[in-house]
Parts: sequence; structure tokens; C-alpha cells
Amino acid sequence: MTTETNVALLGYGTVGGAVDRLLAASAGDIERATGHRVRVVKALVRDTAKERQVADGAAITTDFAEILDDPSIAVVAEVMGGLEPAGAYVVDLLARGKHVVTANKQLVARRAPELFAAASAGGVQLRFEASVCAAIPVIKVLRESLVVTNVHRVLGIVNGTTNFVLTEMEGGKSYAEALADAQARGYAEADPTDDVSGADAAAKMAILATVAFNTRVPLDDVQYAGITEIDPLDVAAARELEMVVRLVGAARLVDGGYDVRVEPAFVDAQHPLAKVDGAFNAVMLQGDAIREITLAGPGAGGTETASAVIADITSVIGTMGTGFLQNDAAWREVPKLAPGASRSPFYFRLLVDDRPGTLAHVAEGLARHEVSIARLVQHQAGSGATLHVVTHEAPAGALAAALGDLAGLEEVRRASRPIPVVSDRGVAELGWA
Amino acid sequence: MTTETNVALLGYGTVGGAVDRLLAASAGDIERATGHRVRVVKALVRDTAKERQVADGAAITTDFAEILDDPSIAVVAEVMGGLEPAGAYVVDLLARGKHVVTANKQLVARRAPELFAAASAGGVQLRFEASVCAAIPVIKVLRESLVVTNVHRVLGIVNGTTNFVLTEMEGGKSYAEALADAQARGYAEADPTDDVSGADAAAKMAILATVAFNTRVPLDDVQYAGITEIDPLDVAAARELEMVVRLVGAARLVDGGYDVRVEPAFVDAQHPLAKVDGAFNAVMLQGDAIREITLAGPGAGGTETASAVIADITSVIGTMGTGFLQNDAAWREVPKLAPGASRSPFYFRLLVDDRPGTLAHVAEGLARHEVSIARLVQHQAGSGATLHVVTHEAPAGALAAALGDLAGLEEVRRASRPIPVVSDRGVAELGWA
Repeated sequence: MTTETNVALLGYGTVGGAVDRLLAASAGDIERATGHRVRVVKALVRDTAKERQVADGAAITTDFAEILDDPSIAVVAEVMGGLEPAGAYVVDLLARGKHVVTANKQLVARRAPELFAAASAGGVQLRFEASVCAAIPVIKVLRESLVVTNVHRVLGIVNGTTNFVLTEMEGGKSYAEALADAQARGYAEADPTDDVSGADAAAKMAILATVAFNTRVPLDDVQYAGITEIDPLDVAAARELEMVVRLVGAARLVDGGYDVRVEPAFVDAQHPLAKVDGAFNAVMLQGDAIREITLAGPGAGGTETASAVIADITSVIGTMGTGFLQNDAAWREVPKLAPGASRSPFYFRLLVDDRPGTLAHVAEGLARHEVSIARLVQHQAGSGATLHVVTHEAPAGALAAALGDLAGLEEVRRASRPIPVVSDRGVAELGWA
Repeated sequence: MTTETNVALLGYGTVGGAVDRLLAASAGDIERATGHRVRVVKALVRDTAKERQVADGAAITTDFAEILDDPSIAVVAEVMGGLEPAGAYVVDLLARGKHVVTANKQLVARRAPELFAAASAGGVQLRFEASVCAAIPVIKVLRESLVVTNVHRVLGIVNGTTNFVLTEMEGGKSYAEALADAQARGYAEADPTDDVSGADAAAKMAILATVAFNTRVPLDDVQYAGITEIDPLDVAAARELEMVVRLVGAARLVDGGYDVRVEPAFVDAQHPLAKVDGAFNAVMLQGDAIREITLAGPGAGGTETASAVIADITSVIGTMGTGFLQNDAAWREVPKLAPGASRSPFYFRLLVDDRPGTLAHVAEGLARHEVSIARLVQHQAGSGATLHVVTHEAPAGALAAALGDLAGLEEVRRASRPIPVVSDRGVAELGWA
């Protein structure tokens, strides 16, 4: 017994076109899995004059009301992007009782609470797998497979552009050369700001933290830094310590608060995140019952994103009317962790005078703030020396205070800013160099 | 509006106990996701005298009929293991219209067609995430996230014991030492036969191939070899070629036929499967729309397996009555690929007399069967030489025929058996050494 189920698309660009084509090609597979024959009946575009190859005879329209008011349409895929009018459209559709699937990262990252509430009120589903890491099914895994695992940490390489650039820099290229190479290969936009500033990764981490921790993590609460300021000295120091520099998204639930950030980090060369290839993405989920699960794959691409949109459509029609996942996904009240309370091992370096007692003063200055040294490498440099220091796990605030004290020491000429360290083995096992 | 949904367990060992405890602890999360309040009401055991800590007041019984005939039970989790009576119980339950979730690898690998048919006939779901790689959600991802991706290749490290042993052997340990270490750490059983023979991995690959290719892949059609015969010369040769030896499960859909096997392979050190840590598992899914997605995590463990069982229970109750995934998952008629037609790059070595013309004769012997050389390393050894050869992709049958010819050459003293090569870069890029 087959039900005819009509789908509409908001937007018919690269992703929209791929959704239409893939849906038409795989309608039989979806029918077999769900009992529903899916057909794209309408697609909203801005300009009907533009030439399009519409796969299965969907009507092209510029009038949103034609979709909103069409009672035959059960599911709408929002693949137009942008905050408005996409946001208003999605809210209207959910309120009208239509299930919505969206690939819109900025929209979900900025307005998740409002969208979740609208879906709950409308008794329909909002799915957004394609908004994070394209075809990597991390949202479904978090919501459906890890439902009984208290996921307390999400670590990710969630921006392929920066991962490619940093991988290339390891080979000796400058930032500018590596970025130009990424642009030539289509891994970076002509204006790469959104990627290299960390803003793109921050939006993804806001969504992942929201789903993983079942709470509202506003994009404004995600502290982020990009890769534009990475010092070649950092890249060299990482290599010497058998680590690599990566732009890491980290979301943690600690002491009843969340801490979500994106920043360059030193990643142990043996850590799974150090091994993510070039422009690929990877997300590691750590939880009570499962230890850790890592998902990796292409984090971008038209058909990859379309595949995720269709997976969501399939899941929606497979669960319509059951109430499954129709409740607000972000129901817990969790505060943001206080600034400075975020704990990590850190790397920093000091340029110091090379004279007796310096190392003892440095160690004392750190110990005063309860920061202990896991590993230390000293290099002579003219009349001075560079100390490369990896600390044990410490609160960022305590380390900042300690570095402030160290900067005031007579024999310390310069202190670098601290860089968090991601290590699988645990810094405790790194030992002294 | 909450529905009370009763669950029964077949078996109350390590996994069953963990399912009971985790379900009791997370009933609120499941209710929020599904609208169902889940409770374990009965558990089937062999011996009621054995002391157990039952989490939430489930009735312990030795009488299967108490579960089969209880109309209040909607979902049954089979966590007792073994082929019988588990198999008969599952079939009876499905026929009686009860959804079944199973962690039983051998049962699913050996009797999937019968079980799928029983579920379809009963109008209920059979889910089996926990039967493969514990908490790694590869079945859900294949069935629900990659529904429109024609997955044509599954590569996996699906046995943690052998992966740990092989990783240790890289460090210079003998097979016996590495196995003893694995046993000491609890990664290997006292009788490790099922793991080291490849039989455990073969069962998992049969299930993965069945789901990925939507066809019936009987366990008997999975050709497997274990790690007991690995030659230390192979480990050394792999290292020299910047590869590692791994027990690789490979399922491919080629020319309308499937080829599913488990065997030691040379894996390029840069390949994601070479980077799987110790006792972890990883599965790489390659498909048309998604390029490739890799899932990695612990492939065994009581709570990890229980987490997968509960994910399945949650998915079942979230989709009850919709028909979602209630159709036979293995509907396609796909034949097994003819023996010898399986294509791969291969490694082999020849012990030869070191005299002019030898290399030309070897290359000619291979070329006669259309096998071409991607990489060749020659080492002097007394009056002879060892040739390490990596071929381009070739049918296994053609290579076997070529090696038969080479063994007949006057100057060839000995030929090793060929070992498949897994390379991300493509052997074409390996170039000549």
C-alpha cells in the first residue's frame, strides 16, 4: 500500500537541483523503505526566467503562498540559504503543520530555539542534518543512536577549507600559498573570510552542541578564532612536539555548564582528528556508554548535502504521525561555563634570558596558579633561550593569570599566547622531553 | 500524551543487564524523544536461582511463552546469543507481531533472509544495530542516512582483537606475544579462534554487505582468512612500502555481482583504516552521492552494545505503525561475483636468481595476464634477490595465473602468495620505487 507524498523545495540552486534529481532517481528506494511515493511538486525560485532542468516536472514558482497554502504538500526542504526570507518561511510552514528539512546552517545556528518551538507547536518535525558537515550523519546519530548516552564532549574538524590549508602548511607552505592552493582546487571561496575566521565552524559547533547537550547554545556563546594569525613558529613547535596545528571545534559539558569554542589547537599526531584528510570533516562524540564514536567524510558538496536532505525527508516520512523527535530538542537549561573556567592542556612558549634560576622562576610562577608542566623543550637562541611548554590540564583563566605573572619576570622577554592541546594519550603520558 | 510501552528481554547477561539499567536510567530521555514511556517488564533467563540486580522490577522467567503470549509486550530485545533457541524465539515473536531488536551477530549473519521475511509477514520491525560493531551506528546510517546513495563498497576493520594484535606486531612483537598481550588486556578470549581465524569479521561483513547492497549475502559466500599465518616477512615488507598489515573486511558490488571477503591486506599508512586505534573498529562506506563516510569507535563492550540495543528500541517505538523499514531489507537479486573476478592491487614477493634478464622475464610473465607493476623493490640476498612487487589493480584470477607461470620460470625460486593492497591514493600514484 503506497501513499503519495508531496514535497516542495524552497530554492533550486546546486543543492535544490541535486535534491530534485536524486529524489526522482531514488523514489523506488524511498518507497520501499517507507511505503511513501515521494514527488517534488513545487519549487520556489526568485527568477522563473532562469533556465533549469527540473527532474520530475515540479512546478516552478516565485510565490511562497503557492507552497504554504497547498494542502497536498507534506514536507518542505529549505535549500535557499540566507536568514531571511528563509527563516520566516520555515516558521510559517511549521506553524501550518508542514514538516521542514533544512540545509541552512546560519538559520539553525541563530534561531534554533524559535524553530524548535514552532515545530513542537505545529506538531511536525524539523530536521537539519544537511546544515552540519553535509552527508556526515552526525545529527541523526546524536538524536537517534546516542539517545541514552550522555554525550559530554564533541570535538570536531568541521571546516574543510581550514583543514586543507593547515595540512598544506605542515608541508612548508606559507598561509598565503596554502590558501591560494585551496582556492585553486575549489576548497576555498574567492572571499574566504567566513571559513578562515572560524565563523563557519562556530555556527556548526553551536548546532552540534545544541543537539548533543539538548540545550540552547546561541551562536553568540561560541567563542571562536580563525587561522589567519597562526604563527609559523607555532607550526614548527607543534611538529617538534609530534603534534599538528588544527582548527578544532570543542564543545564540553563541565560542572553543569557548557563551553563551546573554535580555535587553533595543537593536536597530538596520533589523535584521530590529526588524521583527517585535507578538506574532509570529522566529528568525535564522547559519551558515557559509548566511550567515543568518530564520524568522518566530506563536509561539503552539492550531492553530499542533497544526500543529507533526502535522508531527512525519508526519516520524516518514515516517522510522520508518531511524535518521534517532534518535541523540542533543546529542553535543558544549561548555563554557559564562566569565562576562564574552561580546562585544557595548553602549549605556550617563552623567550627568556638564558641564566641560572630562570626555569625555576617560570615553574614557580606557574605553580602559584596550580598550573603544572607536562613537557618542556628548551632551545638556545643567541643570548637567550626559547622555552616550549606543554602544561597539564588547567583552567584557561589560571593559565592566563600565570602567564601575566611570568611576563612580569625580569628574565622573561616575551610570552606567546597559549594554544590548547588535544591529546588522545592524555598529556600525563607525554612525559618530559 | 504518553504511551506506556512494554519491553521484554531474552537473556539477562552482561548486555541484558546493561540494557535494563540504561533503559531505567534513560526512560525520561526516551519518552521525550518518542512520547513512549518504556519499561522492561519481563526477562527470560535459563536459571532463576542465579542472583541478579534487576533494575526496574522486571519479572524474571524461564518460560518463553510468558513473553510470547503477553499482549502487553510490544518490543523484545534478544540479547541471549547462540543460534538456538534464540532463532526460533525471534521468528515466533515476529510472527506474533512483536518488534524484535537483536544483538546476535551469528543469528543475523546466518539467517537474515528468514528473519527479514518473518518481520515483513508480521508487519513489524527487526533491527540489529548491536549485532555489528557494538555502538558504532553503521546499520542505521546505511539504512536511513544513505538510502539514496548507491553504496558500492564497504571496507572495514571490524575485529578489534586482530587489529590490536597486528598493531602490536608492528612494534616488533611476535604473533604469540601480541596475542598474549591482547588476552592480558581482555581484548582477546582465552580461546581466540573465532577472532583470529577471521570468522567473527566474516559474520559482520555478511551483515554489512546484506544491508549495504540490499541483497542476501549468506555467510558461506564470505571468503575469509585470519591472521594466524601472517609471515613476519610480510609485516617487514609492508613497513618498507609505507604500509601496514591489517585484517580488512571488504564488500564490493562490481559488474552486478558482490564480492565479500575478510583477509590480511597491506593498507597504505595514510589510509583511514591504517589509523584505527588498537582494539577499535572502523567502517568506511563508499557511495555515489557521498564519496565516503567513515565511522569509528569501540566495536565491543557491554554498555556499548547495550547502547546500540536501546537505540534500536527507541527507533522502533519512534516508528511503530508507520511501515518505516518494515519491508524486507534484502530484496535485490545479486549474484556472487565469480571466483577470480575480484579486482584489487596486490603485493607479492619472489625469491629469484640475481642474473640478467630475470626482471624482464617476470614483467613479461605478468604482462601476459595483463597484470602491470605499480611498484617494485629489489633486495639482494646472497646469490639471489627478493623482488617485492605491488601490482596495479588486477583480477585475482589473472594474478594467480600469472604467479603460476612465474613459479615455472627457471630463475624463480619461490613466490609468496599475493596479499591485497588497500590504498587511498590509488596505486597509480604510488609510482616506481
